[in-house]
Amino acid sequence: MKFAVTILGSGSAKPTVERLPSAHVLNVHEHFFLIDCGEGTQISMLKYGISASKIDHIFISHLHGDHYFGLIGLLNTLHLTGRTRMLNLYCFPELREIIDVQLRASATTLSFQINYIYLNLTGVEMILDNKCVSVLSFPLTHRISTCGFLFREKKHSRNIRKDFVSNHNIPLEWFPRILSGEDYIDEQGNSYPNSSIVLRPGKSRSYAYCSDTSYDESLCPVLYGVSLLYHEASFADEHEAIAKLKFHSTARQAAHIAKTSDAGALIIGHFSSRYKDVTVLLEQAREVFENTIVAEDGMTYNVLV
Amino acid sequence: MKFAVTILGSGSAKPTVERLPSAHVLNVHEHFFLIDCGEGTQISMLKYGISASKIDHIFISHLHGDHYFGLIGLLNTLHLTGRTRMLNLYCFPELREIIDVQLRASATTLSFQINYIYLNLTGVEMILDNKCVSVLSFPLTHRISTCGFLFREKKHSRNIRKDFVSNHNIPLEWFPRILSGEDYIDEQGNSYPNSSIVLRPGKSRSYAYCSDTSYDESLCPVLYGVSLLYHEASFADEHEAIAKLKFHSTARQAAHIAKTSDAGALIIGHFSSRYKDVTVLLEQAREVFENTIVAEDGMTYNVLV
Repeated sequence: MKFAVTILGSGSAKPTVERLPSAHVLNVHEHFFLIDCGEGTQISMLKYGISASKIDHIFISHLHGDHYFGLIGLLNTLHLTGRTRMLNLYCFPELREIIDVQLRASATTLSFQINYIYLNLTGVEMILDNKCVSVLSFPLTHRISTCGFLFREKKHSRNIRKDFVSNHNIPLEWFPRILSGEDYIDEQGNSYPNSSIVLRPGKSRSYAYCSDTSYDESLCPVLYGVSLLYHEASFADEHEAIAKLKFHSTARQAAHIAKTSDAGALIIGHFSSRYKDVTVLLEQAREVFENTIVAEDGMTYNVLV
Repeated sequence: MKFAVTILGSGSAKPTVERLPSAHVLNVHEHFFLIDCGEGTQISMLKYGISASKIDHIFISHLHGDHYFGLIGLLNTLHLTGRTRMLNLYCFPELREIIDVQLRASATTLSFQINYIYLNLTGVEMILDNKCVSVLSFPLTHRISTCGFLFREKKHSRNIRKDFVSNHNIPLEWFPRILSGEDYIDEQGNSYPNSSIVLRPGKSRSYAYCSDTSYDESLCPVLYGVSLLYHEASFADEHEAIAKLKFHSTARQAAHIAKTSDAGALIIGHFSSRYKDVTVLLEQAREVFENTIVAEDGMTYNVLV
């Protein structure tokens, strides 16, 4: 079952030709979740073959423009393509005013409804829980109200091993009994221990998105054991003071969060446009946490357990 | 002296990978004017080597998103690069509210002032007049308030022919007299007719931008004699009824406006995303007005007299 993130924008406030502002698309079992939506996101979706119409949930971490200026254009396009399915938008309340004022100016009534789910800063909160995923929001430390998101896939249900089913003529009434934990006893009285014939659900995979934040170790208990952590890494060591001043992190700090959180892997991104080559950021992160990779626009990363 | 337009976006409401939404940059004697600013404009500027910092005047024809969604990102970038020079913004009043609500949400006070000049629909109006250009706005016929713009370069001042100055030892006090129209008489009493030694200013060049509009012949007197006309051509003949319904034009209608206005050349653009190949639109326009070209993102067109 697919669990993968595609980076649509790996840059920060000032876009470059190579790095658009923040936007990630998470594919969980072919359900698509858009996380942040910087300017140009809908064009990147076209470029990288991601269908905007498949997205039912959009998460906006905060209202700095490099995280949402592309949203109104995306909504407009969904409207023009005749979408009728409701769209769920997880955001801070001011975004509704921003969207509404622009719809009014163009005399547009969207062809679909937006269901606003407002984020809050009081602590960790479950903001979505459906059959494929649960999503938690958690506050980050930034200049304005900002939340990160933790996506955890739902464990697959128990299944009887296919080869066992093929090789044994199991009466229908035995299926629910085996799945509920009973050992199977066939007509000849042979007994098969439940543990040998039922597949247990695998460990669920998870993805955390820490958009813009100061270095904050208090995040680690929330992130603990995450399969893949995306953490902003706007600056290199030499600009640590600027990072602190601007409520951002260095690549090394991102790696410390990954290490302390016992993350499986770390993606760093949101690079300041001053770094034409981000190799130094990757090197500094890897000194702390080896399994670090650099976000590149268009890259898809399959999340492992 | 340069007078050229660069197309940053030749598409319409739904962007494609090949055609971003509307944005043109006009270079008049190395003064730069941005006309409309669809999503991705600032990224196209980077791509095509146009310096955003050089732009002091931005014209937004109307508040459909494909004509202004890129503006807030551009303003944000100008702020982040520390611009202090005032920026003149020609637009309908609702745009100020749209900008302000987004600045408030990000707790941003721009590093520069925006001087808003509001458009009106009562008729042709001079909205800018400086030493290099005059700009008229004029109402278009669209679903919401929309204006077109006519840019006319200022005539160059009269100049004494360089070869004449080099070959004659003209006393300084004679220069203003010659430029004011006197014939020159040298110390030997030789007379040189003013017309043979003074260069007259050339005919001034002009560029008109008709963004989104129904076919409207009443534009022609305003546009009469324009050097280069950009006119939207959202649809082909077969979709003329849709064009009318949506307050847009066909390529053939754009060509009729160019012909009746005695334009020097016509650029068509704002193509509906349904046309993967716009050759048919070009052909239909050329049946009426031969000197038609198709807008392509990144294209620069030097305006001739």
